[in-house]
Amino acid sequence: MKQLENFFMPGSVAVVGASSNPAKSGYILLENIVNYGYKGDIFPINPSGGQALGKKIYTSFSEVGKKIDLAIMVIPNQAMESAVSDAAKCGVKNIIIISAGFGEESGPDGAGRTTRLQEIIRSSNIRVIGPNCLGIYDVLNQLNATNFPNLPKIKGNISFISQSGAYGGILFSALKERNIGLSKFISIGNQIDTGHADMLEYLGEDSTTAVIALFIEALKDGPRFLETARKVARKKPIVALKAGRTASGRCAAQSHTGSMAGEFSTYRAGFRQAGIILAEDSEQFMDMLSVLSLQHHILPPNNKVGIITISGGPAVSAADTCEESGIAVPALSEKTVKELRRYLPPFGAGNNPVDMTPQTAPENYLACMEAVCRDSDIGGLIALNVNLDFPEFGQALLKVQDKFKVPAVSVLIDNPKIEEMFGGRIPVFKTPERAVRAYKGLIAYRESRDRLIAKKTEARRKTIKVSGLSAKRRNCLTEHEAKMILKQCGIPVTRDILCKSRPEVLKAAEKIGYPVVLKVASQEILHKTDAGGVILSIANPIKLKEAFKELESKSPQWLVEEMVVDGQEIIIGGKRDETFGGVILFGMGGIFTEILKDFSLRICPVSRADAREMIDEVKSSPILKGYRGRKPANIDAIIDVIVKVSDLMHNNPEIRELDINPAIVNHKKLIVADSRMILDELRIKNNGQDMRAGI
Amino acid sequence: MKQLENFFMPGSVAVVGASSNPAKSGYILLENIVNYGYKGDIFPINPSGGQALGKKIYTSFSEVGKKIDLAIMVIPNQAMESAVSDAAKCGVKNIIIISAGFGEESGPDGAGRTTRLQEIIRSSNIRVIGPNCLGIYDVLNQLNATNFPNLPKIKGNISFISQSGAYGGILFSALKERNIGLSKFISIGNQIDTGHADMLEYLGEDSTTAVIALFIEALKDGPRFLETARKVARKKPIVALKAGRTASGRCAAQSHTGSMAGEFSTYRAGFRQAGIILAEDSEQFMDMLSVLSLQHHILPPNNKVGIITISGGPAVSAADTCEESGIAVPALSEKTVKELRRYLPPFGAGNNPVDMTPQTAPENYLACMEAVCRDSDIGGLIALNVNLDFPEFGQALLKVQDKFKVPAVSVLIDNPKIEEMFGGRIPVFKTPERAVRAYKGLIAYRESRDRLIAKKTEARRKTIKVSGLSAKRRNCLTEHEAKMILKQCGIPVTRDILCKSRPEVLKAAEKIGYPVVLKVASQEILHKTDAGGVILSIANPIKLKEAFKELESKSPQWLVEEMVVDGQEIIIGGKRDETFGGVILFGMGGIFTEILKDFSLRICPVSRADAREMIDEVKSSPILKGYRGRKPANIDAIIDVIVKVSDLMHNNPEIRELDINPAIVNHKKLIVADSRMILDELRIKNNGQDMRAGI
Repeated sequence: MKQLENFFMPGSVAVVGASSNPAKSGYILLENIVNYGYKGDIFPINPSGGQALGKKIYTSFSEVGKKIDLAIMVIPNQAMESAVSDAAKCGVKNIIIISAGFGEESGPDGAGRTTRLQEIIRSSNIRVIGPNCLGIYDVLNQLNATNFPNLPKIKGNISFISQSGAYGGILFSALKERNIGLSKFISIGNQIDTGHADMLEYLGEDSTTAVIALFIEALKDGPRFLETARKVARKKPIVALKAGRTASGRCAAQSHTGSMAGEFSTYRAGFRQAGIILAEDSEQFMDMLSVLSLQHHILPPNNKVGIITISGGPAVSAADTCEESGIAVPALSEKTVKELRRYLPPFGAGNNPVDMTPQTAPENYLACMEAVCRDSDIGGLIALNVNLDFPEFGQALLKVQDKFKVPAVSVLIDNPKIEEMFGGRIPVFKTPERAVRAYKGLIAYRESRDRLIAKKTEARRKTIKVSGLSAKRRNCLTEHEAKMILKQCGIPVTRDILCKSRPEVLKAAEKIGYPVVLKVASQEILHKTDAGGVILSIANPIKLKEAFKELESKSPQWLVEEMVVDGQEIIIGGKRDETFGGVILFGMGGIFTEILKDFSLRICPVSRADAREMIDEVKSSPILKGYRGRKPANIDAIIDVIVKVSDLMHNNPEIRELDINPAIVNHKKLIVADSRMILDELRIKNNGQDMRAGI
Repeated sequence: MKQLENFFMPGSVAVVGASSNPAKSGYILLENIVNYGYKGDIFPINPSGGQALGKKIYTSFSEVGKKIDLAIMVIPNQAMESAVSDAAKCGVKNIIIISAGFGEESGPDGAGRTTRLQEIIRSSNIRVIGPNCLGIYDVLNQLNATNFPNLPKIKGNISFISQSGAYGGILFSALKERNIGLSKFISIGNQIDTGHADMLEYLGEDSTTAVIALFIEALKDGPRFLETARKVARKKPIVALKAGRTASGRCAAQSHTGSMAGEFSTYRAGFRQAGIILAEDSEQFMDMLSVLSLQHHILPPNNKVGIITISGGPAVSAADTCEESGIAVPALSEKTVKELRRYLPPFGAGNNPVDMTPQTAPENYLACMEAVCRDSDIGGLIALNVNLDFPEFGQALLKVQDKFKVPAVSVLIDNPKIEEMFGGRIPVFKTPERAVRAYKGLIAYRESRDRLIAKKTEARRKTIKVSGLSAKRRNCLTEHEAKMILKQCGIPVTRDILCKSRPEVLKAAEKIGYPVVLKVASQEILHKTDAGGVILSIANPIKLKEAFKELESKSPQWLVEEMVVDGQEIIIGGKRDETFGGVILFGMGGIFTEILKDFSLRICPVSRADAREMIDEVKSSPILKGYRGRKPANIDAIIDVIVKVSDLMHNNPEIRELDINPAIVNHKKLIVADSRMILDELRIKNNGQDMRAGI
């Protein structure tokens, strides 16, 4: 952490590749450092020597002969390895590499350069930002170590960790337009050494940062990032914009930064668990940052807003957007409405939204706003005003925000007087939708913080250990094997008997009791139903013989199982994600999961609260809550199994995939009717030992 | 139409309620008319007389003594009736009523005033805009008959019909910021006489209007509006923003304009059929208008774009937003990629998006953009540039737009030189998402126009006539009755026999053949399944006797029906919407329709093309296309029934509601297994005659 601080508060800076040619990066960067008022020593370095901006250019690190805290590299990538080595030898501990050409997208040369550079970094104990980045900008310390011209100099409390340099440009421009300040900008580029998690951890402790912004294409170390975020999000809002949400975007991201992004739905799940606020697009990202920057200290106590306006139409759009965003626009109490009626013209709307209309006397704006804030339901205000630039409107809104300690956001069109009044205290937007979506950031932060604090209290569970797999050196376990593992974890499974002949099948059915299910049991057949290898509801021996005839030739052995009649099918699954590790899925199975993609995900370990959220998130899950006169299913039983499957995945990294499909759940209990498990081929090959969890 | 023209090109204007007090509406409006350069005669009128802005204030219409083409009323609502009567008597044909206080939201007084005013309007053959509106602004004729100060004076081709005056303010401000011009602004207010449809019809013929914008809270005459839109949308893009999409919004709209808005999903269906482009929010509304204003003459031939950038990160967001918006970002051909590689640095991405990176020489931008446009797949360009203000970038983009006749939109951050170059030719946005969503307007317009032109060729169907209902003076028809009507329309229904005793039930089953279904047949039971009144798959007389025992006490009579075994359940419904009339619903029934709200709607009459779209729009409809090895269902049979149900609803306004739930469809045919029909109570009461369609 101390070493990371050097990036932002170095006592001295070297610009390696400094140039006297104003068209060159090495000149612009040097100029920026000088012009933005950096207070420490500045050492331009270039083997060609000479002068730049009135400063001597040193020909090497050793020529400088003084302590260099931070070196910024703007040299061709071919020269990077020796430059970094030289810097390390001369005691430089922090390096920013601006130059590109290191990712896999640059071909084998790029990959080779990256590996060799990583080796140098590791062995010399330095910290590096980049390569392929735009540098850093610390507004408070006046250190602009980027190539950006015209950066805003307003000091603020937002710090931005960006995997894209250009997104910095978008944010700078947006903040300038909104007159909102910045603390730090960090372009992390290819993350050869430091990445999102490191910088997030640093900013979590940084007292000048109140709001953290993240632009993410692909995370490098998902679990560590989430762990860090979970800690930081208890103290400060973290707002993320995730690019590479779609196949087209991921493809673009890959060629852009050379890192492969996983499925967006997995990211979204992880962000939710870690308390990161996910913006839907660049504009909401910047709008939420603006609102949080100004109002993170006056969070709304609930998700209910009062909309107050003198402009009817835009207030209708605001109300729509609230409902679409999960923000309630509750009816006001009778008392409030009665009070409002004293000030409004007869055609003014005395409910929520409160339409004061242009006919309400400006001196009554305050009384109206106070009445709304006094209503016990209201947790914040959205105020709209098109074109009536009465100072009373602005004064009233500022007054109620202070007095009632509820945040207000505004939509102002052509109201320069009011807009000036709001500067730095109430955010101003140009459309109702943007105001509402920005306000959503305040609610999201309060909710995620509360959720994280509540989560901390959940009891730790004991580790699930799996044993007895030593004999199976196969990749794909049979249903019987998979169910035995689930049973070891305390998950109820249907009784089954593996049979190798017709007499065995008939005997097994007698033992289990009719009705039974007959299934093929072959390692060749992964999807038994699709292959016509499952016959359900076999009522008696005659039907069983018919069924056996049908499946006889399809498989060398068969499974006879108890038939679960009464209940609803669900699916619970687990997979190993490259970025985040174990991921758990819940859905209603079949068409719902496969065609409608109606499922929810969480990263392991999944808490009981997470599991409950997973069920609620699935749109078709109301089926479980007593659809069409059926008894509600036992939700706790589902939560139990989700949590157990999560623990199984989390503690047994050898399991690559796990499907419970279907489990049948009714009002009493849940039982797994089929399961599939795939082990990690490499691990099996590498150690061939008994798979043992909890290690 | 000629009379509507008077609103915009009057030879003379009277301002009724004109005032010499600068704080009053009657002053501001008069001042606006004078200051914006209106060329005709201006007559201020006010019973108090006096002078305003150096003009004599007349005390009455009769005192003016000259022809008045347009009167604008800014007087208290209590004085309105006599003022309108006076105006009509003096030969005024067009009146704009700014004053509020006429809707139902103003209490019984407001409603009464409205009715009396309507009577005067009807009897005197005048046309009225308003009341409760902000007036009109014709930029080309320099007539600002609104209270808005500082309106932009840039002449353009967008005309805006707005049910909210304040939305005019939002659009004015947005267009000013974008430097895009306006032709007309019409604030229609409460639509006592003229409304959306009238103005749309007028603008459809107006040669100065190339793009029509609509802000809609609630339409007054849905069918006429859609019919008008359908004609206009073949010639000009119509972009709509619909407020009152949610319950909160509808509630707000109701108190705001006193008109009740129907369900948003019905509006959306109607808009699609009429070729109206629906914006998702205010910003997309204004952004699509901007793009269409500049580029309506160079529409993209397909929905495939090339994304070209020097800024990687924002291009990833652009690609994501394309995919999320149904715009394809196709891989470029090998030939194109090879050509691009000649100009790009090795780490530049040579596919789509094309990331030229800051390292590509600006003189090569044109060659890169040309290569992309030459690719046969590409129908338009999205170009992004953060911070590298090289004129070559702007010149190249303008050049390829002209040369290849494909539209380009841009994202420019801190590029003043390029931005100036694009003025009036290439739209500029500040985030990638906005650029993509705006571009979507071009694709949507081309698609809707093509769809409308194709639709025109569909054959007219013969009118469906329903007879034989004379005996039923009931509101709610039985399943048997409803099915008989469907049968008359040529819709296949399951055989059924109505029985009054156990022997009849047993006989009926023999006649129909096992397996059968037994249902209660009682007018008291609307939802038979929920009441436990349906027993399916009865295999033999023994089972039938058991079933009868169960249903015996529930109903005075029973229906024995053929059991349809093989197929997928679907639901087709019809209802009477207050705004649009007959509306048809399609869905997969059960959970899909009820819990997941996965259904599609269209307004009657529904064409075969509409019906096909309805099926495709339903997310769960892939079930019909051969899910899990089943044969694909007969989609044409579904289309047949949707169209027939639409004709039935359309030609028989006596039918208020109609449910086919379920119909069973398989690869061969469709058959209706249950139906419910509700007739309009009032009509039944009023004429009690035989219901006869085609009238």
